[in-house]
Parts: sequence; C-alpha cells; structure tokens
Amino acid sequence: MSLLNTTMQEIKPLDEEVMKKSQEKLDSLTKPLGSLGYLEKIAKQICGITANIKPEVKKKTVIVLAGDHGITAKGVSLFPQEVTAQMVANFANEGAGINVLANHVGAKVVVADVGVAVDLDPSLPIKHKKVAHGTKDFSQEPAMTKEQAIASIEVGIELALEETNNGAQIIATGDMGIGNTTPSSAIVAAVSGLNAALVTGRGTGLDDESLKSKAVIINKALALHKPDKNDGLDILSKVGGFEIGAIAGVCLACASRRIPVVIDGFISGAGALIANKLNPLTSSYMLAGHQSVEQGHKTALSSLGLRNMLDMDLRLGEGTGATLALNIVEGATKILNEMATFAQAEVSEADK
Amino acid sequence: MSLLNTTMQEIKPLDEEVMKKSQEKLDSLTKPLGSLGYLEKIAKQICGITANIKPEVKKKTVIVLAGDHGITAKGVSLFPQEVTAQMVANFANEGAGINVLANHVGAKVVVADVGVAVDLDPSLPIKHKKVAHGTKDFSQEPAMTKEQAIASIEVGIELALEETNNGAQIIATGDMGIGNTTPSSAIVAAVSGLNAALVTGRGTGLDDESLKSKAVIINKALALHKPDKNDGLDILSKVGGFEIGAIAGVCLACASRRIPVVIDGFISGAGALIANKLNPLTSSYMLAGHQSVEQGHKTALSSLGLRNMLDMDLRLGEGTGATLALNIVEGATKILNEMATFAQAEVSEADK
Repeated sequence: MSLLNTTMQEIKPLDEEVMKKSQEKLDSLTKPLGSLGYLEKIAKQICGITANIKPEVKKKTVIVLAGDHGITAKGVSLFPQEVTAQMVANFANEGAGINVLANHVGAKVVVADVGVAVDLDPSLPIKHKKVAHGTKDFSQEPAMTKEQAIASIEVGIELALEETNNGAQIIATGDMGIGNTTPSSAIVAAVSGLNAALVTGRGTGLDDESLKSKAVIINKALALHKPDKNDGLDILSKVGGFEIGAIAGVCLACASRRIPVVIDGFISGAGALIANKLNPLTSSYMLAGHQSVEQGHKTALSSLGLRNMLDMDLRLGEGTGATLALNIVEGATKILNEMATFAQAEVSEADK
Repeated sequence: MSLLNTTMQEIKPLDEEVMKKSQEKLDSLTKPLGSLGYLEKIAKQICGITANIKPEVKKKTVIVLAGDHGITAKGVSLFPQEVTAQMVANFANEGAGINVLANHVGAKVVVADVGVAVDLDPSLPIKHKKVAHGTKDFSQEPAMTKEQAIASIEVGIELALEETNNGAQIIATGDMGIGNTTPSSAIVAAVSGLNAALVTGRGTGLDDESLKSKAVIINKALALHKPDKNDGLDILSKVGGFEIGAIAGVCLACASRRIPVVIDGFISGAGALIANKLNPLTSSYMLAGHQSVEQGHKTALSSLGLRNMLDMDLRLGEGTGATLALNIVEGATKILNEMATFAQAEVSEADK
C-alpha cells in the first residue's frame, strides 16, 4: 500500500476519555471555572490528540515547504518568480521572518524544496524533495498530474514522520511560493463552492484591477477543470501547488502520529483543506495559528471548524503566524500541567 | 513635589524621529511591505517608546497588584473575599496561572498587597504596601479618600520604578481582588458616560439576575457620587480600588521611564483609563495584551485607542493575558532587529 494510503488509514479519532479527564483536571485548578477560555480548550484538545493527560509540546518544528507556480505567467503576483528560490536561500541563511520567530519560540526550522522552478544548489542545507520544476499554468492545463499530487503529499508525510521520529512533539506548517495565494484561492473556492471573487485577496499587495483579474482567472480555471469538491487529489492536481500538497501531507502525518499540527495562514489553510478532504478526522489534530488578512482564510478555517489564536493582520506566510502561536499552545499545556489545584493551594471554591 | 506629580510631568511624547527610521528599516526587510501587520506596528511603537531604533524587551516583569473591595458585601462575586489573600499566598508559592505563564515566557513576577482586607503574614515573599484593609462599600460611601487614592497610585509608581531600576525593559500589569470587576465597570461607565448595564459583565461567573443587580448597584453609586469624568483621582477615590490605583501608577511610571507597559484585561484596562485621565500621553506607552470576555473591556480599549493582541476569551486576570502577549512583543522587536534586508539577502524586490 502507498505511504499516502497507510498514513490516511492510521488516523484515529481523538481520545475522548483523556479529554474528559483533562476537563476535570482543568476545573480543579485555582481559577474561576473556564476563566482561561480558549487556552483551556487548547489544553484539552492536545490531551485528546496525544491521548496523554500530561502532554508536552516542548520540542517544536516548523516545516516550510517551497514551490513555484505556472500561474505567475498571468501576472498574479507583484514579485518575480525568482524570489521563491532567493527566499529559500534566505531561509537557509537564517535571515527570514520565519527564522527569527522560530528562534524566538525555540522551534527548529526544516525547509524543503517541493517544486521550486529552478535547480537549487544541492549543497544548500535544506531537504531536496523536488517533485517538478514548478506547476503548469492552471489557467491552461491542470497544475500537475495525479501522480505528482500524490508525490507532493508524500513529501510532506516523509518530512513530518522524520521530524516526529526525531522527537518533535508539535509541528507548524509554513509555505514559500511566489503566486501561491492564487492556487489557494482556487482550492478554497472549489471546496466551498463560492465564487472566487469572495475568497481571493491581494496576496503580496495587488491593486484593485489586478485583484479582479486574479479572481476572473480562478473562476475560468475552475470552469475549465471542474474539480470534484469531494476529491482532495482532484482539486490539488487541477489547481493546487506542490508546497500545498506537501502541507496536506504534513497534516495527515501529524494526525497519524497523534501530534498536534498548527497551521499557518491562507496557503497552509488550503493545504489543510486538502488533507481534510482526504481524511475528515485530520482537522481534529489541527490548530489555527492565526487569522490571515487574506480574504479566503476565514472560509478555510470555518470549513475546517477551526478557531484562530492570533489576529494580527499577518500575511507573510512562511509559517510565521503558526510559529508565534506555538508559544501559546505550549503555554496552554503548562497551565494544565503546572497550576496548583484548589485543594493543593487551600483556596476556597466558588459558591455553587 | 509629590512622586505622582513628578512622574506625570516626566512623561514625554513618543520619539517620532526614531519611529520614522524604524519604518524605513521595517520596509527594507525581506518580506512584502507591511506583511507582518500588527507585529510591525508594535515594533515601531516600541522604538518610539524607548527612543531606540534597536530596542530590546528581553527583561520582562509582571506586577500583580492585590486589593479587596467593600462592595463585595453586596454579593457581586461568586467567591468569598478571603480568596484574595489565599490567592496572594498561591502567587507566592508559584501555583497560580500567572506564575505558570510568566515562567513560560521568562518574566519575573512581583506581587504586592496594596489593599487586601486581612493582615498578611509579613514573611510572605511579596511587596507589603497595604494602603488600607480593603475599600469601603462604594454603594454607601466613597471607596477611599483622595489621599488613599494618591497613595495607591504611588505604590504602583514605586514598584515599577524599582523594577526598571533592576533592569526591566517591559512591564505587564496584573490584578487580584475578589469583586474587582465591579469598580472596574464603575470606572469605565464613569469615563465613557455609558449606562453600567452596557459595560458590566459576569466577572467570575454571575447568573443573569446577579448580573442585572450588579449593574443597578453601579448606576446607583455613580448617581450618588457623581465622579468627574475628567478627574482620574475623583473617579478612583469614589468608585475604584487600591489595586486599580496601583495599576494606574505602574502605567504612569512606565511612561515616565520610556518603558512599554502591556495591560491585561478588564481591571488593568480600568487602571489604564485612570492613568490616561491623569496624563493623556500615557496610553501611547501602552499595549493591550488581549481582549477580555468582560463586556466593558472593549469600551476601555477603544477609549485608550489600543488594539488587543490576543483574543482568547480570557477572564482570569492576574496579568495572564498580558504576560502571554509579552512573548509577542518580544518577537516583534526581534523581527526588526534580526531579519535580513533585501540587499543583505540578495532578494529581488516587488514591482513598484
């Protein structure tokens, strides 16, 4: 059986029994009932994910997946395609936003080339996992073959399994790919059935005219390819991207290993949607790092049933929002594990 | 001149020149313009606060102020008043939520008794700064005298000055005081002119009936005392609390020393409002850690012109939300200080 199929089959529901016990523990701690709000819910979810009443998410990894997009030929981004490869080098040199924030929260950064358009220097200290030299222009033809779609997902699975084997207790997803808000909008439009105009944003900073044109390109492509909204592989291969497939793979692998996965902004949201189409249990292993500025991200999160932690107008990608949120998830587990109970601290409880 | 007056006079506007330079620096970093959203704005504000283009907020302190409230005699809280003192002991034993989160983000915790109703064991490792044994029941008489109001603010000033002298580069505010959402709602209602029903919430978990009664008590007290909405000392002395006054003092002292102050939830917001009435430059030195569940907090933040970082349904107080947000502020400064520029990383810029 393929790595993808094995991984999908290994995904089980959250552990309800442990979640129930974690709620009892949370309610015994020295604070008014439920007063730590979403932090408590996160702690409970992590218990269910890990099937552990005392979970730890100290060992943190962010996996940044890079790929290029044929659709950039249609002028959907302010930046030239060469920037994808340049930014991969910047990641390797630890100069990018994601390096700074990962270092700040104590997370390891793993960068992978899943589909950068140019050949990268093999000595670059990244994971060399290229599926192809960028996707095709999906306004003309499918972005990739079904085999390539599977290969890109399996790259993500391999990377995440390697990290969990190395001890990672939580993984954040990240992306780099000039033009990749366009396939992400196409995926969200395909899954939600909404007109692309409702789920397409300015990406790195398009003006009004280019924004309109971007939505028109996506609507036309969806009319041309007619992706099956219930078939993640069909959507990914017709209008997706290699890094987006790999993000889906990371999500699936984390769910199969009972590891929480914190998804970043819009592109990661699109990858998470693909993963959840492949196995709808996957989203219960996800947390949303932040609410992106990018218009379609709200739709993606609500399709996944996820609530964001941060809401800071971020739209950089790279995993920056998810990585900043790792610190919050870690804080939530410590609340559960380290706070004193009413009995321990000899504090009076509320009138019932 | 009094410590309060000296402190108020030392507060100067943010350094616009340094803020301008910081914006140029931010725009040269390897990311689409403005794509780190509010993180970039925080970095810029910290530059203006510190008058330093390369600011550091590594040394972090949360100051937790404790006080009791005569108004608890009117049944405005689910918890008995004795819990304030019990929780102070819990802080000293490092068992509370604030201890866990401060430890998590690497912040020092300073706890002070500003007005706990009972005498605390003098050997307890906290700051013993009691102004009085709890406030008076402000539904009957002013909560405190004007001298006591000044004394409570000066406690906060002294504590914050001591911390900055010890090297603190950023301070978060926190509170503990059974019943203290009631004076906080009274302060927000007094400052905003809104009916208390619009700015009064459930605190630790009141039911509908008790919630209504709480708002009625506040409206009656405001009608009785008629605090001058432009006089912070008048509002504080008539319907405030000792820990709320001390929070105001912490804000003023931070502004006078050009140190950012991260305010926590509703009670800290009320203290920040008092500080800003005393000197309207103070709010430019503030950041809002989170948006509390407590209804009047939105009004407080908008009066202060502040935007929250976290929105996680927190309503514990103690400084928990502000402390979790310290990590975000620190991340923002590192973005400014540590990211590579387009020139350094040899990355192509966007089409202009």
